[in-house]
Amino acid sequence: MSHQNLMYLVPIVAIIALLFAFYLTHIVIKEDEGTEKMKEIASAISEGAHAFLWSEYRVLIIFVIILFFCIGIGVGNFVTSICFVAGALLSTLAGYFGMNVATKANVRTANAARQYASNKALDIAFSGGSVMGLCVAGFGILGVSIIYLITKDVDVLSGFSLGASSIALFARVGGGIYTKAADVGADLVGKVEAGIPEDDPRNPAVIADNVGDNVGDVAGMGADLFESYVGALISAITLGVAFLDAKGALYPLLVASIGLLAAIIATFFVRKSKNTNPASSLKIGTYAASTIVFIGGLLLSVAIFGDAKYGMCVVAGLIVGVLIGMITEIYTSADYAPVKEIAKQSETGAGTTVISGLSVGMKSTVLPIMLICIAIFASYYFGDLYGIALAAVGMLSTTAITVGVDAYGPIADNAGGIAEMSGLDEGVRDITDSLDAVGNTTAAMGKGFAIGSAALTALALFVSYAQAVNLKNIDILNYKVIIGLLIGAMLPFLFSANTMASVSKAAFKMIEEVRRQFKEMPGILQGETRPDYKTCVAISTNAALHEMIVPGLVAVLAPIVMGVLLGTAALGGMLAGALVTGVMMAIFMSNAGGAWDNAKKYIENGHLGGKGSACHKAAVVGDTVGDPFKDTSGPSLNILIKLMTIVSLVFAPLFLAIGGLL
Amino acid sequence: MSHQNLMYLVPIVAIIALLFAFYLTHIVIKEDEGTEKMKEIASAISEGAHAFLWSEYRVLIIFVIILFFCIGIGVGNFVTSICFVAGALLSTLAGYFGMNVATKANVRTANAARQYASNKALDIAFSGGSVMGLCVAGFGILGVSIIYLITKDVDVLSGFSLGASSIALFARVGGGIYTKAADVGADLVGKVEAGIPEDDPRNPAVIADNVGDNVGDVAGMGADLFESYVGALISAITLGVAFLDAKGALYPLLVASIGLLAAIIATFFVRKSKNTNPASSLKIGTYAASTIVFIGGLLLSVAIFGDAKYGMCVVAGLIVGVLIGMITEIYTSADYAPVKEIAKQSETGAGTTVISGLSVGMKSTVLPIMLICIAIFASYYFGDLYGIALAAVGMLSTTAITVGVDAYGPIADNAGGIAEMSGLDEGVRDITDSLDAVGNTTAAMGKGFAIGSAALTALALFVSYAQAVNLKNIDILNYKVIIGLLIGAMLPFLFSANTMASVSKAAFKMIEEVRRQFKEMPGILQGETRPDYKTCVAISTNAALHEMIVPGLVAVLAPIVMGVLLGTAALGGMLAGALVTGVMMAIFMSNAGGAWDNAKKYIENGHLGGKGSACHKAAVVGDTVGDPFKDTSGPSLNILIKLMTIVSLVFAPLFLAIGGLL
Repeated sequence: MSHQNLMYLVPIVAIIALLFAFYLTHIVIKEDEGTEKMKEIASAISEGAHAFLWSEYRVLIIFVIILFFCIGIGVGNFVTSICFVAGALLSTLAGYFGMNVATKANVRTANAARQYASNKALDIAFSGGSVMGLCVAGFGILGVSIIYLITKDVDVLSGFSLGASSIALFARVGGGIYTKAADVGADLVGKVEAGIPEDDPRNPAVIADNVGDNVGDVAGMGADLFESYVGALISAITLGVAFLDAKGALYPLLVASIGLLAAIIATFFVRKSKNTNPASSLKIGTYAASTIVFIGGLLLSVAIFGDAKYGMCVVAGLIVGVLIGMITEIYTSADYAPVKEIAKQSETGAGTTVISGLSVGMKSTVLPIMLICIAIFASYYFGDLYGIALAAVGMLSTTAITVGVDAYGPIADNAGGIAEMSGLDEGVRDITDSLDAVGNTTAAMGKGFAIGSAALTALALFVSYAQAVNLKNIDILNYKVIIGLLIGAMLPFLFSANTMASVSKAAFKMIEEVRRQFKEMPGILQGETRPDYKTCVAISTNAALHEMIVPGLVAVLAPIVMGVLLGTAALGGMLAGALVTGVMMAIFMSNAGGAWDNAKKYIENGHLGGKGSACHKAAVVGDTVGDPFKDTSGPSLNILIKLMTIVSLVFAPLFLAIGGLL
Repeated sequence: MSHQNLMYLVPIVAIIALLFAFYLTHIVIKEDEGTEKMKEIASAISEGAHAFLWSEYRVLIIFVIILFFCIGIGVGNFVTSICFVAGALLSTLAGYFGMNVATKANVRTANAARQYASNKALDIAFSGGSVMGLCVAGFGILGVSIIYLITKDVDVLSGFSLGASSIALFARVGGGIYTKAADVGADLVGKVEAGIPEDDPRNPAVIADNVGDNVGDVAGMGADLFESYVGALISAITLGVAFLDAKGALYPLLVASIGLLAAIIATFFVRKSKNTNPASSLKIGTYAASTIVFIGGLLLSVAIFGDAKYGMCVVAGLIVGVLIGMITEIYTSADYAPVKEIAKQSETGAGTTVISGLSVGMKSTVLPIMLICIAIFASYYFGDLYGIALAAVGMLSTTAITVGVDAYGPIADNAGGIAEMSGLDEGVRDITDSLDAVGNTTAAMGKGFAIGSAALTALALFVSYAQAVNLKNIDILNYKVIIGLLIGAMLPFLFSANTMASVSKAAFKMIEEVRRQFKEMPGILQGETRPDYKTCVAISTNAALHEMIVPGLVAVLAPIVMGVLLGTAALGGMLAGALVTGVMMAIFMSNAGGAWDNAKKYIENGHLGGKGSACHKAAVVGDTVGDPFKDTSGPSLNILIKLMTIVSLVFAPLFLAIGGLL
């Protein structure tokens, strides 16, 4: 078989993965949903999640139509516009299927726990999560490979990537605002004012809170990684064709296909694992998939290029991705010193809790950045600028299993919520709690992975951008580049300030609504009247879509304005500035938030005075600050840096035509 | 008179300024110190401040000796080493004289307030502050001009700048840790645990707290601006000689001389002002000095170059410096919306206080960065890379009056503390409080000015560095530059994490000591036994010097390691990365801290429930977080970015000799 015919294998692998996802969906759905009460709650969550999706789609469709024409006219190529729509559509489909099965897996996981079948509960939750992972990677390589096979034109591929980015913006930023508005709002009135426990069905915001887990942590995370996955592939294809030949496009797609097959194999390791510790089962899956890509990537490099050097780039990215996940665990898990130190600092009050959490978050940037630098060094050494894109592909090759493990977390969390709201036994709750605790760690690792891969992807796209606008260099001694660098570095601060303020504003509306319901319907707190869940869901939905507009416009317009006014070099500076500051802020905020969360849980588990102590109250303040940090602002920065770069790449022909006006 | 002879005017102006500082010292000292009790307290503060200085000098002398030989051998030029010692010595002298008179002005200000002579109190406090301002600028241009006149060698000047930076490291970072360890420690035990008011003489940490104002806010600020002042001048001289001729060195020195004379004139505006509002008096001084430099800078440009264009660069820097101060006021003063919003968010608890303060701080980066970019654009347009250095000189030309106004703040603060501790009337305290309130605003504006000028200075020094290592460009597409950029951007996070953790650690020691004294000497709280102030002073002193070592080593070693391992281009990337992230973080942290502080004061002034309300308690948490933000970590970043750049500049010959090892 000739090398180019191998390309046809890629969509076939994608279809195998999607069929396997379909099979796993079937595995989940055939399980029993449990009691009537459980069904009722699960359907409320599912309805809320779908309500959000449909509202999102209504806004999205306008956005897509406008951009369709902007791209077609601005770039002068409507094929790019069509690719843009394809990217948006496939990302939407991946998110829809993934979230749909997640909202079915949650109640079935709870029901398995009700039968004290904890291995089965793990299997259902993980299978549900895996559907999202397989859809992300499957639709990703399906779209990229088919467009490439049809058009044979690498320039239009950036449109596909922009489509993926647009959905990621809505899902990650909007979803992040949604989930934290509901969470903070539910906590502040429910736990603090009314004194009812978390996930209590009397809390009108409780359904919105559980919907938020699906919207933000499943769909948001999935769209974020779909964007990175597609971006890394497209950048590798673009640079591969530019620096080498068609082999340079084939190799990254085959590596991604190996990764996807490896993920399918790895799901069996997890699901058939007899290990009693769910954390170990999940880790085995990730390591198994990584090992397969490690070997496969090197062999394939020798087979295609007659040299292992490009394989080394893939391996560099792969290893660094796994290590960043581990480091994230050290900074955010209560098993290690940093989180314990935050818990200890809570003894002298909320002020010192916050200071030490900020300090831990800032310090946690050091090792991931060092690792990313090592990956850059090694991949450039072996494969030049193309190597950097390959490192990103390598890191993201295990996306299917990583997203699967990550989406497991919110499913387990939801299962716990359903168990609590349905009044199931404490023993059942113990099982869901143990599954959920693992979910917290995997979520933090997943965030670290998402940031690291976003950084490498944005860097690879940045190189593609420079290629597209014919920049031989981007010189920091050029005053326009300095200006670009400064403004770019400022944007993540503006973006984070906006998203944090949005959460505050939306949470405040939620608080007012919950207070109103408690006041006007006294029967709610007595457990006699059913609260009005739908209004709370609507508040989160509207807030998410409304508050997303300004950050979204900033991300799309900033590069266009800079490119038109100060030209391509200044825009290059701006992308670099946003990239470096965005990565630091994303790591800082995600890890600080994760560390505060687990410091609070550590105290709740009976340390330092336990639940209700002054120390615990201080830790709760840290956790409240950490909520928008780790679930809204931090992850949204991944989108900002990728979206700005991809917008610059797509509109490169426009900047070349206009030049810098100033 | 030939152009070059004009150069001899510069040291003459410097000597006039120093004589004027001597005269103002005399004005302050001749005033009465007040009651015995006041004298006793003032001498305890003065002793503590001197104790810190002498301890600092002991460490400093070792540091200076080591660096003396490192520079001489590493660079191969012991003249640079001698310049280094001169820079360190003159900065030390400026700090010593300035702090000495500050610790004399505080009690005399309190005594003037005791006689209800509020204009006189303002005069004494401002005169005391002006001594620091005049010493900073006077010793600055004295040293630079004499070295240049003697050696006629611009390369050795960087040694002088490194000397200034070394003192700034000790004074700003050490001083910042000192002042917040004492402040946080005193507050947490005194106000929270023992329930005694601020500045109560029964609190063993109260003297250390008042010493901290002098050490951190007077000496630290002075050394920071001495470094910027000297750095801007030296960079302008270096680039002026490189791009133009000897005129290029003459012009910035003459602009600085005009600024110094303008500051002397402006002090009369402030001191003779019949305005009843001290804030207006102080502002008039700054504006008067700026106007003189504005006109003088343009005329001088025409006289020397036959063209106003270089004057335009100076004016650009000057205007942006004033505007940044105003913007800082908007984000940190309770007269405007952001601080009121933080206060309002305190109604829903400490979590929302912290979130909104972080959000305000992040958002406050936008306008200052835009202004700095405009200054870069304009100054480059008029004067190329040399123009950027001139903009820094223009911004810093009013340093004498800016530092004077700024150092006024801690003197007024100390005066209030002395009035409280000496049990003076409430009416006296009202006068010192009104002076102190103005000091809070001027302090915030001074911080904004310090950051803005540090950014421009670091940028100018960065250009000088590229010149020194013969880099024609620093290309962000070069993977080594990307690695440098990422590691550079990470360093401000590491540095801030370290300095914040240092404050926590030192404050904890202070808390333990105060608790011990309260326990072992029950007479203290009854007001019968005099607490042991000296031990607390010693704790802050030792902590400051000990905790400074790691951040100091990071700042000095990081550029050397990078330059030796990855070469000059990577080092250029690292400096750029540290510069952009450092500036953002410094603005973010300083403004968030200032905003929290004033939100708390706004509530204490009777809004939203006033002192003691739940809202106030939440605001106190914000203020506690803000303390290390605004007085330790934020300002320390100014030092980091300048020191790293100046180290790179000084060791340029070393990097050229070795090249990148990797």
